[in-house]
Amino acid sequence: MNMRIQLNEKEIPRQWYNLSADLPSPLQPPLGPDGNPISPDMLKPIFPNALIEQEVSQDRWIDIPEEILNILLTWRPTPLHRAKALEEALDTPARIYYKNESISPPGSHKPNTAVAQAYYNKKEGVKRLTTETGAGQWGSALSFACSLIGLQCKVFMVRISFDQKPYRKIMMQTWGAECVPSPSNETKAGREVLEKNPDTSGSLGIAISEAVEAAVTDKSGQTKYSLGSVLNHVLLHQTIIGLEAKKQLEKAGEKKVDTVIGCAGGGSNFAGLSFPFIYDKINGAQIDIIPVEPWSCPTMTKGPFLYDLGDASGMTPLLPMHSLGHNFVPPPIHAGGLRYHGMAPLVSQSIVEGLISPLAIHQLECYQSAIFFAGTEGIIVAPETSHAVAVAIREAKKAKEEGKEKVILFNLSGHGLLDLSGYDAYMGGKLEDYEFPTEELEKNLEALKDFPKPKMVKTGQN
Amino acid sequence: MNMRIQLNEKEIPRQWYNLSADLPSPLQPPLGPDGNPISPDMLKPIFPNALIEQEVSQDRWIDIPEEILNILLTWRPTPLHRAKALEEALDTPARIYYKNESISPPGSHKPNTAVAQAYYNKKEGVKRLTTETGAGQWGSALSFACSLIGLQCKVFMVRISFDQKPYRKIMMQTWGAECVPSPSNETKAGREVLEKNPDTSGSLGIAISEAVEAAVTDKSGQTKYSLGSVLNHVLLHQTIIGLEAKKQLEKAGEKKVDTVIGCAGGGSNFAGLSFPFIYDKINGAQIDIIPVEPWSCPTMTKGPFLYDLGDASGMTPLLPMHSLGHNFVPPPIHAGGLRYHGMAPLVSQSIVEGLISPLAIHQLECYQSAIFFAGTEGIIVAPETSHAVAVAIREAKKAKEEGKEKVILFNLSGHGLLDLSGYDAYMGGKLEDYEFPTEELEKNLEALKDFPKPKMVKTGQN
Repeated sequence: MNMRIQLNEKEIPRQWYNLSADLPSPLQPPLGPDGNPISPDMLKPIFPNALIEQEVSQDRWIDIPEEILNILLTWRPTPLHRAKALEEALDTPARIYYKNESISPPGSHKPNTAVAQAYYNKKEGVKRLTTETGAGQWGSALSFACSLIGLQCKVFMVRISFDQKPYRKIMMQTWGAECVPSPSNETKAGREVLEKNPDTSGSLGIAISEAVEAAVTDKSGQTKYSLGSVLNHVLLHQTIIGLEAKKQLEKAGEKKVDTVIGCAGGGSNFAGLSFPFIYDKINGAQIDIIPVEPWSCPTMTKGPFLYDLGDASGMTPLLPMHSLGHNFVPPPIHAGGLRYHGMAPLVSQSIVEGLISPLAIHQLECYQSAIFFAGTEGIIVAPETSHAVAVAIREAKKAKEEGKEKVILFNLSGHGLLDLSGYDAYMGGKLEDYEFPTEELEKNLEALKDFPKPKMVKTGQN
Repeated sequence: MNMRIQLNEKEIPRQWYNLSADLPSPLQPPLGPDGNPISPDMLKPIFPNALIEQEVSQDRWIDIPEEILNILLTWRPTPLHRAKALEEALDTPARIYYKNESISPPGSHKPNTAVAQAYYNKKEGVKRLTTETGAGQWGSALSFACSLIGLQCKVFMVRISFDQKPYRKIMMQTWGAECVPSPSNETKAGREVLEKNPDTSGSLGIAISEAVEAAVTDKSGQTKYSLGSVLNHVLLHQTIIGLEAKKQLEKAGEKKVDTVIGCAGGGSNFAGLSFPFIYDKINGAQIDIIPVEPWSCPTMTKGPFLYDLGDASGMTPLLPMHSLGHNFVPPPIHAGGLRYHGMAPLVSQSIVEGLISPLAIHQLECYQSAIFFAGTEGIIVAPETSHAVAVAIREAKKAKEEGKEKVILFNLSGHGLLDLSGYDAYMGGKLEDYEFPTEELEKNLEALKDFPKPKMVKTGQN
């Protein structure tokens, strides 16, 4: 009924793919508070040298160190599944494939970069990493990686997820990490937010401010910061997903893929699957590449391409990206990992250049699709992943209407076993779809009006 | 650092191994209330014919139908891991391997038999299955299998687990199953228990009574019952674990294994890993085979080998097994799947025949070992599985003391991501070790004094 396409140990990709090398127009640099480009040196208090080099690298292929591969090999290469049961239930001529990142011990794609980041930090003598987490996937993954590699780890977890998902905190603690709800009283950034709004549900932007502050204010100099998405080096580490998937599709006898889908919060799992296919597209292949976001946090479809801060209080440089404004706090949807105000610069520029076509959808359709998927394919996906599932189902139905034998590939970025309260609320009829808060967007964008503007690189959607 | 030994699709075992064919003395039959052997026909209201045939079969090898293999192949063959990081942390000369059953969508070994049972029931026209679940692993697995194969499913879940693990219920519901706490008011068996003791934490024995009653009293005749452990056919379906592991050890270059370890509640994951190795032992190999149980529910180490009921209220036949008495309600340890009063007849007889050597251990040692394992190997195991981890660590330490290059294999039967409250309690210093309630055992065994006695088959531990 189903089909699982495996790769053996020797077939694991040994290099990451760097999209920066191939974008039609060069990526624009991050800017400091003075509006001038940030030099790599200015990032040294936050990141180890190896990651800064990757952040600005223009090399197309970057070697994966043996030590990182050895850890990745404990669960990679991950399987590619042909979703035969789903296809049959939809009675579609489409062939649907999904890359199953849920089998990593923390249950998502996040350890692909967590292991790499922990490794490079350890190698340069760092003793402790701080980070933020939304849904908890990233915090779990970094805790896991730090535990295996031998680093301390402190996680600032967005308050709404901290409350909705108590098991996430226990998971991080089991791997020896410390986890606190954000905003917290432990940082200046956190205290400022709590003073203004003590009942805030928090946001990734705020949590990032706290985590960066906690790293740079550590007097020992042995603490650095780690980010789970958005930045170039993070997306780079995730490209192992798409590189494996290409080999697996070939093994499955597929000569081409028509549609590639991933959910996108900061952009890392989407980038991981899709960037190797964007490479093909730049080189002439016809592929629809769709990042999917929540209707209530539509960074790519409603947020303009501009320079904005990565966090709420200005601890980060200005990044060229699609953004809803760094103070945007989205409605409390269950897909906590998709509640970020910005989008990775590499993904944002791919939109501007017309290489990918973002889509925003409501959470009720996502849960409905996720339950249909669980009943046919057997995997209970994360609320974030349900966005990709929903669009894969839409595309399969469209293929049926058009009578086309399409090949659809999506990223099953994580399982939902730690996020079941959302399923419970959905099945109990307690979930609603939120309309997008247009007024809040306008207010937030108004606050950015004096920021420098990125150069427009090509005629894009904006 | 770590090593994962994979098998490809074509290397999946195509037959199950039936230990009944090889036990030195024949397995003694289940008995009816009158003390006479149950005929296969008498099981027909409860089980489909194919499973009854497997229950009594003396064939050494039984073919796995293609349709079952096709579903198993979505996550099987499961990986065998060499626990290099754990070995290094223990500084042991032992080589430790674990079979990773946690990567199935429901997160444990249970779907190996759930899929088979759902398949045979569906084939014989059954529309609906009832079952019980302790920790929730089995209930989740049967819900999953019924969803994929197209059957309705109703699960009676032991009250203490129902309360401790709310996510398990949501998981089953997501796969379309109905889940109620046991004892419930829905059955005569449940109502009787609730009348006597409204605050009972429940037991697997009570939940089995309810599930069997719900199946046999269904007037439509389209409902049957499904058990997740104990019975011969259930253990049979699990032997795919050990058969894969043998091929994988060979691939890893191991010529022999010294110690095989599994936790044992009803016996199914232990049997699944160990029976193919018991076969080797019967044929002359030197292997220590250790089923591990909780100190507070020591069925194998404190319960005599006798005829006892499989459930609390006499809905099942009398089975020849190690038992603490069918009304034994163990202390509320977190390893809900190990809180069963009896032990599978095939496992019990293997003890009597001296083929395996059971061990009982306390839960604090188990959690300590599980956290050590999570920190080195990265997987957070189920509380049940932690019993196997703890004994594997003991054995690795012993190998160090003795300076021996032992090969240790254990079954990582499931992950603990739905059972994190136990970890939380342990890390918060809120867990205790329970002394075994000797008086309750005596009272419970006294109640069995008029039951028929099994023949003693060889000089064993009893």
